[in-house]
Amino acid sequence: MTHFQTIPSSGPLRLAAVDLGSNSFHLLIVDAENGYFTELEKCSRKVQLAAGLDDQGQLDEQVMMRALACLKEFGTIIDEHRVDRLRVVGTNALRSAANSIDFVIRAEQCLGQRIETISGREEARLIYQGASTAWQDETDNCLVADIGGGSTELIVGTGTRALALESLEMGCVSYTRRFFESGDITETTMQRAEQAALLELANITTHYRRLGWQRAIGTSGTIKAAAATLRAIHPRLKKGEITREGLAELRQHLIALGHLDRVSMAGLKSNRARVFPAGIAILSAIFQAMNLKHMQHTNGALRDGVLLDLLARDTRHDVRYTTLGDMQRQYQVDSQHAEHVAATALALFDQLDTSWAPDSESRQLLEQAAMVHEIGLGVAHNRYHQHGSYLLTHSDMPGFSLPDQLALAWLVQAHRRQLPEPLQEHRAALPSNELVRLARLLRLAVVLCRTRDPANDWQPQLHADDESLSLTFPQPIPELLREDLALEQQWQQSAGLALLINTP
Amino acid sequence: MTHFQTIPSSGPLRLAAVDLGSNSFHLLIVDAENGYFTELEKCSRKVQLAAGLDDQGQLDEQVMMRALACLKEFGTIIDEHRVDRLRVVGTNALRSAANSIDFVIRAEQCLGQRIETISGREEARLIYQGASTAWQDETDNCLVADIGGGSTELIVGTGTRALALESLEMGCVSYTRRFFESGDITETTMQRAEQAALLELANITTHYRRLGWQRAIGTSGTIKAAAATLRAIHPRLKKGEITREGLAELRQHLIALGHLDRVSMAGLKSNRARVFPAGIAILSAIFQAMNLKHMQHTNGALRDGVLLDLLARDTRHDVRYTTLGDMQRQYQVDSQHAEHVAATALALFDQLDTSWAPDSESRQLLEQAAMVHEIGLGVAHNRYHQHGSYLLTHSDMPGFSLPDQLALAWLVQAHRRQLPEPLQEHRAALPSNELVRLARLLRLAVVLCRTRDPANDWQPQLHADDESLSLTFPQPIPELLREDLALEQQWQQSAGLALLINTP
Repeated sequence: MTHFQTIPSSGPLRLAAVDLGSNSFHLLIVDAENGYFTELEKCSRKVQLAAGLDDQGQLDEQVMMRALACLKEFGTIIDEHRVDRLRVVGTNALRSAANSIDFVIRAEQCLGQRIETISGREEARLIYQGASTAWQDETDNCLVADIGGGSTELIVGTGTRALALESLEMGCVSYTRRFFESGDITETTMQRAEQAALLELANITTHYRRLGWQRAIGTSGTIKAAAATLRAIHPRLKKGEITREGLAELRQHLIALGHLDRVSMAGLKSNRARVFPAGIAILSAIFQAMNLKHMQHTNGALRDGVLLDLLARDTRHDVRYTTLGDMQRQYQVDSQHAEHVAATALALFDQLDTSWAPDSESRQLLEQAAMVHEIGLGVAHNRYHQHGSYLLTHSDMPGFSLPDQLALAWLVQAHRRQLPEPLQEHRAALPSNELVRLARLLRLAVVLCRTRDPANDWQPQLHADDESLSLTFPQPIPELLREDLALEQQWQQSAGLALLINTP
Repeated sequence: MTHFQTIPSSGPLRLAAVDLGSNSFHLLIVDAENGYFTELEKCSRKVQLAAGLDDQGQLDEQVMMRALACLKEFGTIIDEHRVDRLRVVGTNALRSAANSIDFVIRAEQCLGQRIETISGREEARLIYQGASTAWQDETDNCLVADIGGGSTELIVGTGTRALALESLEMGCVSYTRRFFESGDITETTMQRAEQAALLELANITTHYRRLGWQRAIGTSGTIKAAAATLRAIHPRLKKGEITREGLAELRQHLIALGHLDRVSMAGLKSNRARVFPAGIAILSAIFQAMNLKHMQHTNGALRDGVLLDLLARDTRHDVRYTTLGDMQRQYQVDSQHAEHVAATALALFDQLDTSWAPDSESRQLLEQAAMVHEIGLGVAHNRYHQHGSYLLTHSDMPGFSLPDQLALAWLVQAHRRQLPEPLQEHRAALPSNELVRLARLLRLAVVLCRTRDPANDWQPQLHADDESLSLTFPQPIPELLREDLALEQQWQQSAGLALLINTP
């Protein structure tokens, strides 16, 4: 039972998170009620997705089959528990695989659920959220390290707030491929892996050490295994504790074993053995760069963070709206105008029946796009819709997955001038045809608010007949708005979309 | 003789500016001394570059020949005056022509001088600078309008400071093509042109009117001609004054004339006649949108702004460094680190002789790139060099021309990881091979400053032998720096560039 702060709940809500990690897939199902998570199901499968990446960065068929079998199993468990909300996130292996979209399509069919790849820094943020449930009411700074299969996340935070977060391109699976391909574990191979990790760490060390921390926390399988093997040697160590000396001992022990085939230690599961030396090299580099003496393992992890996020959606704690507000400020958006456009767009959306504009997710996306449709102005006025789209595609956006960001980016690019080419299916959070529908509402809202006068509210009636929209004004409208709507009519027509404008 | 403020000068400096406008080319040569410009030469030629754009946006051969002949003439005059500094800027027609790079190459050969296309908002800024020399020591807000051949600039400012500036895609040449192609001047054609202009203006009207102004100033040929023709009808008007009623009168007069071929009025030069009705339509829309009663024409213009900017370079008033500082702040750059990298890069640059790293312009560019090499971190950590490059390519950057921005953007993209493809020649401020050289110095500086500790100064000696660089350290260096340099050696090698590292 995990306590989570700040989020009141009313009645039990069954939540599930699936984490498609580069080394393991994890499933966690909980009941959330009165500020507590009650764990119903928790399981992990060592799929080793990252190990299935070939030299061209393609996931091979064998690992895909292994992954799909695991998802089938998870799907059955999820169905049995009748969960209210489910979120499935993919991390480094899906970020870096050249054919990840092929895998995502098959996996979505298999699970009957959208799969969202998240960025490295979003992963770091969620890991921190998940880990921070372990030290409620803390005011000390904490360093959190998570060594995954393909990436390593490092975060400094206070309480539930991350002060610095980073995802580095090093993981126990990818480093095994890179530095231990021959299987030999020697002083030289360990040192080469450690040096590479130290170079990755060099970019952030000064900044992190300047922030400082009172405690170092480790999550993930590598760190759990390091603590377990160490405790097998030194039973008097506290559970989950890793000391600098102990880590050096483990390292020497692995070198003494000499080869990946011979890695076998008390406390180490056999399916982790081959990636353990690379994990220890990365952990040693973290100890050295951050000058650590101790690290404490904790169980909180990515999947816990995903659940906390899921619970907060549709509440005022939804981190996505904080992110959009931050972006409005960074790019000096006229937020009053953005609000006016959002309200106008939603007023149009709410007139259409659910077959045209289906669910609350679409509605939120439309609102979010309206909030940030002008951020590109912070870069330049010329073609600002394209700049906005670029920023939404590439920015670190806490709370958003990559498909979310791509959907938002597409809508913002589509809010004026020519409608852009549709995105490849399964890349964005919504199908292309639904995005086009939302874009048309956003475009109309932008035209209706052109004079940037929040007092203007034309209250037109919107009617949809398949893809034909008809906009009817109860009162006469100014000549300029009429011209502007005629121009918009032409834009939509040139994309093969009918728009009728009726004025008295 | 124009007075310019805030910039002290010591000894006379002969400056020249050439403005390759969409309607006219202008040349201005002055002596700058003791805060005054003394005009030595001023001439304009109606080249009508924008009229030479065909339906595919290509400049046709005939207009190119006309433009090159004009530049040849300007070149002779500039040579005769032995100017100290010259800057040649291109505006809307060069921004929008699909083959502008072909023209630029031929024009640069013809003039023996680099030609810099500037963005619409940079044009607006320079116009405001140029116009503001007319009202020194003003504390009132001023609206400045400049109707060019392809774009119209509108600025609100106080004294020498612009508070809002915009460049709209409407000009007397492009609107003549778009709305007066048949030659007919009727109430309908005038209204259509005015409505189109009002739609362009609608985006900025509210913001501009909120800022407000006490005086409206007009620059450029259209506005000068409007004032002159009006004064020919009403001799008691003040020179350069345009009233709302007078403008309406001009408009009716043009409609009465009925056809472009019959436009002939006292005060109107015959080579302006055919683009005058479109200019009057745009001016009428500006009067209407901004609710103006009066406008006063002034002679200060783009070329004057270019000269003021030119004079300020190499001084602490150089607007380019203000711009880079603003960008550092917007994207929350660690400016202390940027300074450290800049100082390290310049220390390397200064060890090379002038055949390798030629002039002060290269040196400034290297320094500027170091100042902003990390702005992409403000978007995301992942591939931040690419985000920085995007921002530098697309941002409004006061003081920088588009070739300047492209050179900076290329250097920032090139500062880590793989060296990018070279830019097409003549697009950036420097030739590709010189940019590669600067990028190598910037990369070395970034590696040398990796630990972000400003106290670290390795003081290596740099020697260049053609494209081979050799870096020699006087003292032993840490293992991590050695690894990092070895990695950099590999990057440069994979681009066919030799880098030797010598350590004791």
